[in-house]
Amino acid sequence: MIEHITKVRVRYAETDKMGFVYYGNYPTYYEIGRTELLRSLGSTYRKLEEEGVLMPVINLQIQYKKPAQYDDFITIKTVVKDFTPARITFTYTLFNEMDELLNTGETTLIFMNPSTMKPIRAPQWFLKLLKEKN
Amino acid sequence: MIEHITKVRVRYAETDKMGFVYYGNYPTYYEIGRTELLRSLGSTYRKLEEEGVLMPVINLQIQYKKPAQYDDFITIKTVVKDFTPARITFTYTLFNEMDELLNTGETTLIFMNPSTMKPIRAPQWFLKLLKEKN
Amino acid sequence: MIEHITKVRVRYAETDKMGFVYYGNYPTYYEIGRTELLRSLGSTYRKLEEEGVLMPVINLQIQYKKPAQYDDFITIKTVVKDFTPARITFTYTLFNEMDELLNTGETTLIFMNPSTMKPIRAPQWFLKLLKEKN
Amino acid sequence: MIEHITKVRVRYAETDKMGFVYYGNYPTYYEIGRTELLRSLGSTYRKLEEEGVLMPVINLQIQYKKPAQYDDFITIKTVVKDFTPARITFTYTLFNEMDELLNTGETTLIFMNPSTMKPIRAPQWFLKLLKEKN
Repeated sequence: MIEHITKVRVRYAETDKMGFVYYGNYPTYYEIGRTELLRSLGSTYRKLEEEGVLMPVINLQIQYKKPAQYDDFITIKTVVKDFTPARITFTYTLFNEMDELLNTGETTLIFMNPSTMKPIRAPQWFLKLLKEKN
Repeated sequence: MIEHITKVRVRYAETDKMGFVYYGNYPTYYEIGRTELLRSLGSTYRKLEEEGVLMPVINLQIQYKKPAQYDDFITIKTVVKDFTPARITFTYTLFNEMDELLNTGETTLIFMNPSTMKPIRAPQWFLKLLKEKN
Repeated sequence: MIEHITKVRVRYAETDKMGFVYYGNYPTYYEIGRTELLRSLGSTYRKLEEEGVLMPVINLQIQYKKPAQYDDFITIKTVVKDFTPARITFTYTLFNEMDELLNTGETTLIFMNPSTMKPIRAPQWFLKLLKEKN
Repeated sequence: MIEHITKVRVRYAETDKMGFVYYGNYPTYYEIGRTELLRSLGSTYRKLEEEGVLMPVINLQIQYKKPAQYDDFITIKTVVKDFTPARITFTYTLFNEMDELLNTGETTLIFMNPSTMKPIRAPQWFLKLLKEKN
């Protein structure tokens, strides 16, 4: 199972008047989670884009348990749930410094050609990388 | 069925380098959808907060079909899917100017006391309002 | 003098835990101001980009007087302060519904070729448009 | 002179369709700069708020030289330019990994009582901290 842990400090900009992180900012934390997971595998999402592969999200789910607060140092645990040449699904689990579960989420991404904006298969080297580490 | 239509113009700030609206910005559009639905019922979320009722989101789901583009004038259709004294679920359907489906989503919100941060029942007047219009 | 008035409703997403609009969100309101000013002249920033002209901001200044609050219906007054074939400067004045001054700001933008990322002169038709309305 | 260096990785969410960081996202990077500077002094902005001191920004200036790109690992150099019991001014200088200057900026913040929303003097311990390190 491919799994990665990264950390993010909650910014003032990310809070809302309820005093917590705005519910729409967690997708950005999830982006950080999968970006750093890919980097830990030895590649980057940036490289994928430079090779002509976009990865748009086609599905997002979040279950909010407890809100993150300003200046919290959040732990993001990202897992590759499954992948095919057509799509990849990540799950995310966020904890605060007291190890309290903040939320769990899931995103599915496809591979897309930026010129045609049509779905494509993942590059062979990318699938190989995922298989090796799985 | 309580349903409301509102419009939003895509801002440059909301796009990302893929050239479309960032996937994490749609929750903000959904917020606009439910805010304007409540306003159309004769109340506002602002009033609820002033009366000591917060409404945090506990669940979010989005199915992305087609990306919104910069300067698109998006139609947000918001529906109250169901509600109890403990929670309310909204669904959202977004279209662009060519009437193409952009995405569908759903959020469930609970009612919370800002002092205790504990779940509470929705105010009677609020439930009455929803029942009348349903 | 080219001047345009537009309105924007403050979103929950734009507030921070201080209870007001986060100071970094006003540049987005300014973007709305100049976008709608251009639209009112009969063109759009979208069209400029489609013709191969980017307009990056090279200077931003904001004097904050009073914070905007959630759900406020803000008035954005945008003025073309001056323009040359190389750059254009807009000023912004924001008011709330009680006509209280929220902040004043200024941005200078240049014209840029997206392929070379070098500064270019504004298109003739664009300068003509500005001169006619001035 | 009080000075602090911190780093931030550019998120996809922070880019816009021009392919670079949106001009309105740098104020958030500046927030990170001054937050980490305060933490390096042995205090935090969070503690200030817990003691009943808000620090709203009253002035912002940015000179944009070169845009930051997705996944860039940005260096934020923050300096306390000057401070009085009534206000504090920070300057910011951002560089990318090739040590290219991205932008320079300045913010002035005042101290405010969250109950009265009136300006107040900075807490003695906070001024002492700044003086010691200056």
